[in-house]
Amino acid sequence: MTITITAFEKSPDRGQGLARDMRVRWALEEVGQPYEVRLVTFETMKQPAHRTRNPFGQIPTYEEGDLVLFESGSIVLHIAERHDGLLPKDADARSRAITWMFAALNTIETPVFDLSLANILERERPWFAERSQALRDSIYMRFDDLSRHLGDSEWLDGAFSASDLLMASVLLRARAAGALDRHANLAAYLARAEARPAYQRAFAAQRAVFEASQGR
Amino acid sequence: MTITITAFEKSPDRGQGLARDMRVRWALEEVGQPYEVRLVTFETMKQPAHRTRNPFGQIPTYEEGDLVLFESGSIVLHIAERHDGLLPKDADARSRAITWMFAALNTIETPVFDLSLANILERERPWFAERSQALRDSIYMRFDDLSRHLGDSEWLDGAFSASDLLMASVLLRARAAGALDRHANLAAYLARAEARPAYQRAFAAQRAVFEASQGR
Repeated sequence: MTITITAFEKSPDRGQGLARDMRVRWALEEVGQPYEVRLVTFETMKQPAHRTRNPFGQIPTYEEGDLVLFESGSIVLHIAERHDGLLPKDADARSRAITWMFAALNTIETPVFDLSLANILERERPWFAERSQALRDSIYMRFDDLSRHLGDSEWLDGAFSASDLLMASVLLRARAAGALDRHANLAAYLARAEARPAYQRAFAAQRAVFEASQGR
Repeated sequence: MTITITAFEKSPDRGQGLARDMRVRWALEEVGQPYEVRLVTFETMKQPAHRTRNPFGQIPTYEEGDLVLFESGSIVLHIAERHDGLLPKDADARSRAITWMFAALNTIETPVFDLSLANILERERPWFAERSQALRDSIYMRFDDLSRHLGDSEWLDGAFSASDLLMASVLLRARAAGALDRHANLAAYLARAEARPAYQRAFAAQRAVFEASQGR
């Protein structure tokens, strides 16, 4: 059955791989599943046709036959459950990997995304200096804990899993926001993730979409 | 095997059911699993013993034999996967329910939690009025979409599931922050969730902990 995902026709990150379709592309590359891409604009993603895919009018979405999903974390988990390579077989290890998926999105991404959004939307507001420092402190505090947990391990909990994929995608955004400057083992962890052939293929595919949009 | 969770010895919400152990208590009540509670203070939750359960020093955690999990969303999903009653049997419906679990925590909770935190930490700041209005607008925008999706349905996608449990727990926080004042069908949805006997038992159990802490 054909898998179709949605992505930005012209990503606001200018092809840096920060848009959340990257997670889904990367997961599909890790498990060796081909996919098609439906491109949306900021206008079309808020219209009824796209809202049947995602009521909140966001990307990415995932279609496979009659099944329609949204939320990048949920889509990555769905792919990991259906195909080998992104979750351990052992039941306890699998539950721990899922715990780290939630940690990436709920504990780490929250202040990271807030900082990257504040950097864009609040730069001229009176509270920007104080708020961006507070967000940075909050990111560093969580990175201290994450860094201590990771130590010199290669991945979060044994073999590479969907949790590393999501955590690395959050660290990419942290690096772009200038907050991955203090934790060498986290930067090295991200570099290991970026070196994966599946990541490279996914990055090139989303980059090609952005570059095509520039040629128009 | 005994299930042990962690919760605040003295919840900062004063027993209103907003701390995230409520989600886990509620899920365990829905599936009829008994559990024990290990209480932690703001001090002990940051110490090494608790960080072996959660590297970020937060509650709730979940222990069952050798398995240790954290992140309330992950724990609720684990419970829903192990016991009947919180996820549909049909594979596609199950994936959609998990999509809504992620939507509750990643799309809806994010601005709701920010507002409830700003209400506490930023009330005296000169920018509070402007920032709290911006957060409120962002919540209302998402509530508009959620309200349109829900319509006059009882639950998010067919029968009550773990996604309704998480969404209701986020709406509880929105109501406490004063942001559930414009969407009557969402308020009615939350009231249906609160009327569930499993919710009532979970609420009473966490409330009893807070009341005991006041007697000391």
